[in-house]
Amino acid sequence: MMNDIERLTEYIRNVSPPNKATVDRALEREFWLAKPRGTLGELETVAVQLAGIQNRLRPQHQHKLMVVCAGDHGVVEEGVSLYSKDVTFQQILNFSKSGGCITVLSENVGAKVILLDVGVDHDLPPNPRIVSAKIARGTKNIAKGPAMTREEAVTSILTGLETVLLEPYVDLVAAGEMGIGNTTPSSCMATVFTGMSPEEATGRGAGLDDKQVRHKVDVIRRALDVNRPDPNDPLDVLAKVGGLEIGAMTGVYLGAAIRKAGIVVDGFIAAAAATLAEKLCPGIREYMIAGHKSREKAHGALLDFLKLRPLLDLGMWLGEGSGAAVAMYVCQCACEHFNKMTTLQEASITDVVLWPDLPSRAIA
Amino acid sequence: MMNDIERLTEYIRNVSPPNKATVDRALEREFWLAKPRGTLGELETVAVQLAGIQNRLRPQHQHKLMVVCAGDHGVVEEGVSLYSKDVTFQQILNFSKSGGCITVLSENVGAKVILLDVGVDHDLPPNPRIVSAKIARGTKNIAKGPAMTREEAVTSILTGLETVLLEPYVDLVAAGEMGIGNTTPSSCMATVFTGMSPEEATGRGAGLDDKQVRHKVDVIRRALDVNRPDPNDPLDVLAKVGGLEIGAMTGVYLGAAIRKAGIVVDGFIAAAAATLAEKLCPGIREYMIAGHKSREKAHGALLDFLKLRPLLDLGMWLGEGSGAAVAMYVCQCACEHFNKMTTLQEASITDVVLWPDLPSRAIA
Repeated sequence: MMNDIERLTEYIRNVSPPNKATVDRALEREFWLAKPRGTLGELETVAVQLAGIQNRLRPQHQHKLMVVCAGDHGVVEEGVSLYSKDVTFQQILNFSKSGGCITVLSENVGAKVILLDVGVDHDLPPNPRIVSAKIARGTKNIAKGPAMTREEAVTSILTGLETVLLEPYVDLVAAGEMGIGNTTPSSCMATVFTGMSPEEATGRGAGLDDKQVRHKVDVIRRALDVNRPDPNDPLDVLAKVGGLEIGAMTGVYLGAAIRKAGIVVDGFIAAAAATLAEKLCPGIREYMIAGHKSREKAHGALLDFLKLRPLLDLGMWLGEGSGAAVAMYVCQCACEHFNKMTTLQEASITDVVLWPDLPSRAIA
Repeated sequence: MMNDIERLTEYIRNVSPPNKATVDRALEREFWLAKPRGTLGELETVAVQLAGIQNRLRPQHQHKLMVVCAGDHGVVEEGVSLYSKDVTFQQILNFSKSGGCITVLSENVGAKVILLDVGVDHDLPPNPRIVSAKIARGTKNIAKGPAMTREEAVTSILTGLETVLLEPYVDLVAAGEMGIGNTTPSSCMATVFTGMSPEEATGRGAGLDDKQVRHKVDVIRRALDVNRPDPNDPLDVLAKVGGLEIGAMTGVYLGAAIRKAGIVVDGFIAAAAATLAEKLCPGIREYMIAGHKSREKAHGALLDFLKLRPLLDLGMWLGEGSGAAVAMYVCQCACEHFNKMTTLQEASITDVVLWPDLPSRAIA
């Protein structure tokens, strides 16, 4: 029987790169669709990327999955958030009644929503929509010591990962989150992984003013001083300055890559989890599509680190997975145009001479 | 019996501004939804705008309409397009079989598609999906004289307008287009309406190189010299340097505003038609939502003129209405979050003190 860390290592070994031959064949089909080449911009890029990820010449979007990972944060006692911890469980209950933004937008796009409690500091009532997988009642205060043990960090990742593996079909996967205070650990992780300063890594969260942001920077600096996470040991970073729901999100990404599903990354916290995934499993970024550009300050720097270009810029900064939920629709449009448009030949369009430098091989 | 110009004038008189009282009530509801204020960015702006347009506190998106207006352009004989005229009818036939980008993306978002032939230079076979309302077999060559008569210009607008009025329900309306060569009249119109130079107004269309663009600028300059359209007479501009499908698109916008539906504006050609609509019916821009930022050069200048900010920037420049079709989904998300999210009170979220400067009136 493997222990948890062996199991995680084995899972990571199961992530292979997207299929390059399928990418080539998809590119060729894209060229022949009944439109001038390149005129669909990101819809073309995403369709070809998904073909490679899914290793299918007709990339699919029908089975969408949104795993909303929930956990609390001991560091909230330092006053880094405008909200009390209670809002985490209140929102999860609200989500369970489809009343939250992430449930509304997920259901709108046809995504299955899983509410995954890995660390809410509250006894949630039995509820068929909430998966109870609580590892601890929130993290410890990272300004004073590690967030969690290394074992708990591994368990948080495995919980997210195996949640995805349990689904019979997945084409597109996103991780959402609910955890009051979770931009603070995300900023810590961004600092450690990218080398940016705590000032550069710290934004307004859910609405801090300038003075409150300066205080948050101080707390983040203290968390890094007290814990000294090892940048070359991703699990150490998660355990010392991360969050239970952030670990679970990283696991969701690993699970999606194992299942050869496209990963739609939401905003800042999701990008921190995605960076952790890339550190654990180099190359997994090729499975990722950055859903949107959040207004949270250091989001862009994390996307640069991951070499991802965001699809949408709608001025959103709510979190929960909301940007990814909207972006899943762009992925759907990518698949639909690619799968359903006719080729120039099928449409009997006579001006095919206008694409003189196309490869002459058979159409995919 | 009114003549056509009287009928158009009467229709324009039926466009009234969006309801400001409903906008205020919608803003208040938006403030109380279970999320920090402003975190949904454009989804919030669009929801409130649509509430005012539709004069409904629960703005609707279910009845979406995409009117694809088709017409040919005599100026194609000057070599302003890489494509021959034949591609217009070939693509309309392709659309009628759901094989084109605009049909795929419209069907994907749940929009009804009307293919409206107002000026294709080809006898289209009888087809239940094509509305035959041909005014002429394309425009005349604008480099040598007017595109059409003033009467034909009025008829083109009325045709688009009454097509929308015939629909039993419309919540969101977009105009798409198919007309090889139609960026040339659009650039002429942009020049006349905004005062920009032919160079500034002229882009690559469906893929011209630098030399071909310079030739197109020359043709546009000739068209303006020969025709001398009067900037203060929008119908004169349409008749002299416009297009039959562009007039029909303008009519679609007028019809949508009469019906109190949100208008989703596509790319460059759509923006030229929207500018014409604003010239004919000042204030109609308040009904408009700019769907996306096209790569066609002068699109941004037209949006600035209309004071519209594009929702999406996906690197698309196909036309047909494709960007508007994707953007309709953003409008859908705007309506859905607004109508279905709980308020803070309904969600029993206790930290409502965090919105101290909210109005104290009853929730909408």
